[in-house]
Amino acid sequence: MNPFVYDIPVKVYFGRDQLHNLGGELAKFGQRILLTYGGGSIKRIGLYDRVIKELREGGFEVVELAGIEPNPRIESVREGVRLCKEHNIDAILAVGGGSTIDAAKFMAAGALVEHDPWEFFGANAKPIDNALPIVTILTLSATGSEMDSGGVISNLETSDKLGRLARPLLPKVSFLDPTLTYSVSKYQTACGAADILSHIIEVYFNTQQDLYMLDCMMEALMKTVVKYAPIAVREPENYEARANLMWASSWAINGFINGGKRKAWSCHPMEHELSAIYDITHGLGLAILTPHWMKYCLNEENVAKYVSFGVNVFGVDSTLPPMDIAHEAIARLERLLFEELGLQRRLSDVGIDDTHFAEMARKACRYGDIKGFVTLTPEDVERIYRMSL
Amino acid sequence: MNPFVYDIPVKVYFGRDQLHNLGGELAKFGQRILLTYGGGSIKRIGLYDRVIKELREGGFEVVELAGIEPNPRIESVREGVRLCKEHNIDAILAVGGGSTIDAAKFMAAGALVEHDPWEFFGANAKPIDNALPIVTILTLSATGSEMDSGGVISNLETSDKLGRLARPLLPKVSFLDPTLTYSVSKYQTACGAADILSHIIEVYFNTQQDLYMLDCMMEALMKTVVKYAPIAVREPENYEARANLMWASSWAINGFINGGKRKAWSCHPMEHELSAIYDITHGLGLAILTPHWMKYCLNEENVAKYVSFGVNVFGVDSTLPPMDIAHEAIARLERLLFEELGLQRRLSDVGIDDTHFAEMARKACRYGDIKGFVTLTPEDVERIYRMSL
Repeated sequence: MNPFVYDIPVKVYFGRDQLHNLGGELAKFGQRILLTYGGGSIKRIGLYDRVIKELREGGFEVVELAGIEPNPRIESVREGVRLCKEHNIDAILAVGGGSTIDAAKFMAAGALVEHDPWEFFGANAKPIDNALPIVTILTLSATGSEMDSGGVISNLETSDKLGRLARPLLPKVSFLDPTLTYSVSKYQTACGAADILSHIIEVYFNTQQDLYMLDCMMEALMKTVVKYAPIAVREPENYEARANLMWASSWAINGFINGGKRKAWSCHPMEHELSAIYDITHGLGLAILTPHWMKYCLNEENVAKYVSFGVNVFGVDSTLPPMDIAHEAIARLERLLFEELGLQRRLSDVGIDDTHFAEMARKACRYGDIKGFVTLTPEDVERIYRMSL
Repeated sequence: MNPFVYDIPVKVYFGRDQLHNLGGELAKFGQRILLTYGGGSIKRIGLYDRVIKELREGGFEVVELAGIEPNPRIESVREGVRLCKEHNIDAILAVGGGSTIDAAKFMAAGALVEHDPWEFFGANAKPIDNALPIVTILTLSATGSEMDSGGVISNLETSDKLGRLARPLLPKVSFLDPTLTYSVSKYQTACGAADILSHIIEVYFNTQQDLYMLDCMMEALMKTVVKYAPIAVREPENYEARANLMWASSWAINGFINGGKRKAWSCHPMEHELSAIYDITHGLGLAILTPHWMKYCLNEENVAKYVSFGVNVFGVDSTLPPMDIAHEAIARLERLLFEELGLQRRLSDVGIDDTHFAEMARKACRYGDIKGFVTLTPEDVERIYRMSL
């Protein structure tokens, strides 16, 4: 059990009708705001108008940057950095899902350095010692970027999709209003749920001993997703379902559940290579890979973890033999993802073949073997890609 | 489901050997430190010497205030306030359990006002707009004061024991080293566990609908206490048990599990009147009262909550009739508290008779009926005292 530091000072306004607090929170940082968002969805749901009204009433100077992509690209970050510098921006307001928030984080860091923001990524990454303050209004429950200090940016030129964690990237304030996710499609809701589950599974399936309390907390979060994701897919305007998914998305990845665990994640690096090349939705890639990764890793030594997962999250009969519980747990996870949530089951279902598997496997291990629940070499990764085909 | 604000910026160093970070953290606030602690226990376990070494190496000016009582008294707070003012203190370092930390909080607030600190309490309490920074080193897992913004102070002159919550009282940094609780007696360990459980039960047993996720999180915390409290009592130097209890104590009461719930607590106000007059340990009072309060409140309408509690925390057979599950849940709680943890079962076991019951019941309802899980009038409170006799 390793020592750790817990330090998550993000302030969260959770629930309906909290946006009247936006102006007061932003004013703590200054008057010149970069407002950044994705496509037109925030206009369709009326959120854009509400945000502009609050900003106008607060007397803020607003510069806008729309069009942040899913799997946000370094070009968008560069444009944001340019605007921050040109307009001497005091704070960034990101309205959207994880993509918009991730992009905003690197704009915020890039605004305070001279070098290109792509230099924040990769093996010789430049330090991130400072960033403009970031405030977020979340519209998609998935990545947890609203309460964590990380982000992932794609570079299509180099076919790279790279993540970076740095404390100055932590948002100062996040607004989580479940009703803002009512218009999220069934497909994106399902992908978001798969992403949340994966964030927990990546930490839960760990050979390092840590606090039992945190294992129980993770099971609590996973039970919540298992219960409410299908409801949110069936009934998009079910407040209870949307609210539970939304708060679970933040707690899945804000660092609390990690405790002192230091093992690397497994499915995320494998998936990042998929979506770097194919631009498929991150959560779908995770949904397809995770059950195969679980099957690939299962052995007599680590079966106990699968047993807890099956019994405590999916209610599998605890009197069955351990290996049976493990297989039943994986089957229940597959039923959730592919039947209840309706996600595609195989890479070939989304037009991906084995052309790039060897290259992707090599890149997934660019910093060495993946030392997660079970250590994975590039050969292991390629095998898991093939199982998922 | 009410909206809420989540905002818990306390930084926590968790685990062994983190005290080398103390100087760096304190230095953020200044150089003149009031070091406050209780009896001699921190000297017996060598903690005092380690703290003094860190403070000396950091070049701090240190003023000491020892002798903070269990159920800390307003006189100690007054003395702390006097020292803060006289020595122009920059920050308070509280080393101890909840009593020491609670006292430190009101010293920190009192240092910045002219009036007597007892005026922070009661019906016409003065505002707490500011406080000196507070850093804590925790030596007892119980009250959660290390990560919350509240405290309770006793005034023996008026037989009052009053609590107060105020945001400036939130510690800036807390050090949670489970090994510092190894020397806590079996009895105090058991009382602390009862206190932690009670903090969760007070929120869990609530008729306001809130996030299912938070109910699951509370069950996770309660399972942790149920599993590890008996181990810590049997094996005082079991790191795993001490660590789980310690982190659970913070999360039981730092506000996270509350979500948007606004119902009042029940057992705490009843217990505060007990320990205001009899000076019994807070956790023991809670342990004695809680099962009787649960029996008193149980009815056909609210039995579902007892069922979740029984099934998810104690593993009671979910196929039994709901009322049977409820009674079995209470029986299991009693078995935990009075058999496994060895606490006294009845008020009469600790020399308390019914002399003051009417007065205590009236005081417990000094601000009106207790509007908790079930609304309690002074007559109800007196009946629960009598059941506990």
